[in-house]
Amino acid sequence: MSKYSGVSLSVIRRLPRYYRFLKDLKSRGMERISSQEFAKLIGLTASQIRQDLNCFGGFGQQGYGYNIEALSGEIGKILGVYENRPTIIIGAGNLAMALINYISLKQEGFKIIGIFDSDPEKLGKKAGDIEIMDIADIEQFCKEHSPTTAILAVPKTAVASLWQKLVDCGIKGFWNFSNFDLKLVVSENIAVENAHLDDSLMTLGFCINEL
Amino acid sequence: MSKYSGVSLSVIRRLPRYYRFLKDLKSRGMERISSQEFAKLIGLTASQIRQDLNCFGGFGQQGYGYNIEALSGEIGKILGVYENRPTIIIGAGNLAMALINYISLKQEGFKIIGIFDSDPEKLGKKAGDIEIMDIADIEQFCKEHSPTTAILAVPKTAVASLWQKLVDCGIKGFWNFSNFDLKLVVSENIAVENAHLDDSLMTLGFCINEL
Repeated sequence: MSKYSGVSLSVIRRLPRYYRFLKDLKSRGMERISSQEFAKLIGLTASQIRQDLNCFGGFGQQGYGYNIEALSGEIGKILGVYENRPTIIIGAGNLAMALINYISLKQEGFKIIGIFDSDPEKLGKKAGDIEIMDIADIEQFCKEHSPTTAILAVPKTAVASLWQKLVDCGIKGFWNFSNFDLKLVVSENIAVENAHLDDSLMTLGFCINEL
Repeated sequence: MSKYSGVSLSVIRRLPRYYRFLKDLKSRGMERISSQEFAKLIGLTASQIRQDLNCFGGFGQQGYGYNIEALSGEIGKILGVYENRPTIIIGAGNLAMALINYISLKQEGFKIIGIFDSDPEKLGKKAGDIEIMDIADIEQFCKEHSPTTAILAVPKTAVASLWQKLVDCGIKGFWNFSNFDLKLVVSENIAVENAHLDDSLMTLGFCINEL
């Protein structure tokens, strides 16, 4: 349910960054940090961080700074990292394999429960401890296991023919590595996060040209 | 050399998207498109697209719309997709393998000429048609082959100990998949494009929570 509907996307996109830095500080045994030190570490101003966090209630204490464990816990909750969302991956190529390792390592709120491909050579093989299943069986799988998130690690054309079926099967959130512009077609009650690697690479190209 | 220093990053980040859509239209044999149709397709307004393109000189013609081949060529040039930048990948895990396929397939201005890892089990094996080399030999390789771009597909700690050496070896642009915040340490004459997958995943978590 939308608790933070007024918060701008650019603020939301900074939260994972705060969370990562806090987790890192925590793992180094630190308990608190002044807002100035935190700002310097993260490459922003103390006032920007304060403004950002105020969108979610504000968590600092004047004269004390931030309690690292408490703040990382609060931000983690907002980001849903303590959830265990049943997640499927569409596509069993190298990218999918990298993402499976990554997700199980990171524990950021998602749990892979199924991997699907259409390549007969891949079916039945294992990715981590999960067997690669036939994409033709996906509806049956979804009925039985109710995944809520799908990671799309297949080309654009495959996503074009598949996304509606996934929505019908109960998928609420997509992590989209394809170039298919899902956001233009799904309704507002579906979450889409694009990871357009080629846009990122071309942006690098631009920046190198500008040096 | 900076030709577009006044252009905001959000405009720049839309260029690859324009380029992708134009390439797609071109591959379907289309020659021109009205600014309204293009805007609808891409999910923006015609006026926003016009404003964006005006930052780079403007390429439309009143009453004609956009010539698809010409516009994709111009934007491609701005993004440097016709370059052939010698590029190395640090790390030879699943992510690196996915990126190698991806880059050779996409032809967006980068050419992989070397892959490096420190795992003795990987050394000498092939990734595509390139042999995986020992990270200890990277300086020698750079002297001989002068790569200008490095893709960082290794953990944060590895990047922390390696980035300065890469800069000293002549690397001008980094595509950074690690959580090491390169932008905070490198000088302004180095281009860094982060692909923070976990920030992207956590943003999805937030958006799902908000449904």
